Amino acid sequence: MECYLDNSATTRAYPEVAALVSDIMLNTYGNPSSMHMKGVEAERIVNKAREDIAGVLKCRPKEILFTSGGTESDNMALIGTAEANKRSGRHIITTKVEHHAILETTEALSKQGYEITYLPVDSKGVICLDALSNALREDTILVSIMHTNNEVGAVQPLEEAGRIIKSYNQKIVFHTDAVQGYGKFRIIPKNLNIDLLSVSAHKIHGPKGVGFLYIKEGTRIKPIIYGGGQQKGMRSGTENVPGIAGMALASNMCYANLSEDMERLYSLREYFISEATKLMGVTLNGSEGRDCAPHIISLSIEGIRAEVLLHALEDKGIYVSSGSACASNRPSLSGTLTAMGVNRNLLDSTLRFSLSVHTTREELDYTLENLGIIIPTLRRYIRH
Amino acid sequence: MECYLDNSATTRAYPEVAALVSDIMLNTYGNPSSMHMKGVEAERIVNKAREDIAGVLKCRPKEILFTSGGTESDNMALIGTAEANKRSGRHIITTKVEHHAILETTEALSKQGYEITYLPVDSKGVICLDALSNALREDTILVSIMHTNNEVGAVQPLEEAGRIIKSYNQKIVFHTDAVQGYGKFRIIPKNLNIDLLSVSAHKIHGPKGVGFLYIKEGTRIKPIIYGGGQQKGMRSGTENVPGIAGMALASNMCYANLSEDMERLYSLREYFISEATKLMGVTLNGSEGRDCAPHIISLSIEGIRAEVLLHALEDKGIYVSSGSACASNRPSLSGTLTAMGVNRNLLDSTLRFSLSVHTTREELDYTLENLGIIIPTLRRYIRH
Repeated sequence: MECYLDNSATTRAYPEVAALVSDIMLNTYGNPSSMHMKGVEAERIVNKAREDIAGVLKCRPKEILFTSGGTESDNMALIGTAEANKRSGRHIITTKVEHHAILETTEALSKQGYEITYLPVDSKGVICLDALSNALREDTILVSIMHTNNEVGAVQPLEEAGRIIKSYNQKIVFHTDAVQGYGKFRIIPKNLNIDLLSVSAHKIHGPKGVGFLYIKEGTRIKPIIYGGGQQKGMRSGTENVPGIAGMALASNMCYANLSEDMERLYSLREYFISEATKLMGVTLNGSEGRDCAPHIISLSIEGIRAEVLLHALEDKGIYVSSGSACASNRPSLSGTLTAMGVNRNLLDSTLRFSLSVHTTREELDYTLENLGIIIPTLRRYIRH
Repeated sequence: MECYLDNSATTRAYPEVAALVSDIMLNTYGNPSSMHMKGVEAERIVNKAREDIAGVLKCRPKEILFTSGGTESDNMALIGTAEANKRSGRHIITTKVEHHAILETTEALSKQGYEITYLPVDSKGVICLDALSNALREDTILVSIMHTNNEVGAVQPLEEAGRIIKSYNQKIVFHTDAVQGYGKFRIIPKNLNIDLLSVSAHKIHGPKGVGFLYIKEGTRIKPIIYGGGQQKGMRSGTENVPGIAGMALASNMCYANLSEDMERLYSLREYFISEATKLMGVTLNGSEGRDCAPHIISLSIEGIRAEVLLHALEDKGIYVSSGSACASNRPSLSGTLTAMGVNRNLLDSTLRFSLSVHTTREELDYTLENLGIIIPTLRRYIRH
């Protein structure tokens, strides 16, 4: 049996998406900037994708900027906003549990003279709103708080955060990295006071190499890539027409039956957590309830190195992640788990199981069964 | 009959490339950063692509950095080099006939305090090497000269330029935008003293949204996008595995029979030029010989607005470009033609016909036949 439980790292494309990408590559291959029909056809595809995504976010199509993925979206949100607002101030607020696409970018900005405040989180991985209130300053230009944490699935209180930020100063730009939340939650930027929102297609069964940044009309932000002036000069470069269309289709498919799909995912998550934590020395990081994302389960397994268990599961066709896969080539310990106060000796004993709409109860049973065998076996080896 | 003669704007993907992209999206969908087999399989595909491209450039695989396309490659080459070398100087040399991905980026750099020298070109669109020699200064950190001009096909004397630059100061970084030259010429960066070289996949029948930057080992350059540390920290973001594989396949296919294919293209180009310029008031911009690119033909048609002729040809199923398609949404006149000293009244009467390996003699005959009918007809209308 094959159980791909690493869907927060990346997902298998929907077959319909792969077919669409291939079809556009062969049959609607024009450059949207071309003045002739081949260009117009390609431009129509891009415009339709923009409308589809705007429909999901209940925003205007022109508020959607296509990028090469979540990382570029995050970089543009931070660098583009910092650059455009530096005369108003150089203070940026984010959290300790952001993805590296945020944390490395704020690191780069701090070297350029920006001052960064990193908000702490509680034991469930959720930011403290008082800390946000206290961090706001006259020279704060940007607050970036992720929607859903990629390691434990904690969902941040964006609505309250947005209210706090905007009531302090309407001009502060509010960004959210929604790479793990989009496709799982209905997110309406306007209702949350969100100005910028990053999404990646390959986390929602769309193509790799494409994403978007929602930019609320009127937000002060500058481009970070220059050239032919595509997308009104905000992101130059020939549009990735097949990728953009594939992303929009994946987005539509994710939201077609969202409530039912998420209900099913929550049930699967609750079942898996309740069974897995019956195993000796297995604990959940984050919340088990529905205040958490439906697809991410972080388990610490006392006394066993994550890498060893990961490869033992792999031998059984079960694919999971240790820490955040997007940075798993790095040998560093998880910033999220550390910030949550997880016991030091568990940091290196934590696996992430991440589900998708394709995950079945049978796969989880198979995984639980194998965990039940492998964990005691590994512990026995370690004792000797 | 349908004649797509806008291959310098973008190309139709090879069917094999579209099939490969779709196959990888469905079957090798892992994240190369994942530690398990699904990740390893994806990483292998990326590594194989790197080796394939390195084989073409006769460089090392680790000298290939994957990007989201030619525009990002150009931006990284310029901004990344400027940022990494600003302590050595702030003078950059480029040419007046570069693509907007270069010209808009140098414009942005000039606002940050860099000084830019734009080299002039002769009537064929070729830079004057004396001007390059004279432009070099103690504080010059970067020279960026395109390989093949996108509007008229002029090929720049990179070998001589490289020798001049490096004999002046070994430390000056030499970049070339090879977006129009790659896949048409054998380009060996080492032989040309090139440190950085930009390529886009969708110009060589590969996927949109992917490209690469060759970075000679030891070149001082910084990343422009931060995050998970992929590609040794030089370009964060989950690798676009299907796109990268598709680009490598397209590259291999372009170079499989390069000499024969280019011989055929040169013959077609020469034939088309010789026939088209027999029409009254039709002149070639650039060179007709083999010192020029084999696929780009720029024609000025006296007394007829390019846009009008473009749409008249479109009605016959012939797709061409006015000026550079990557910027054709912009109503500005061509910088390349202006720099070449093309008569002012011809600037707005110029069309680009760009061929591919799929272009046939029949398509060109059909186009010539229609030009022969449409041009006199349009002139008659204009007279009235």
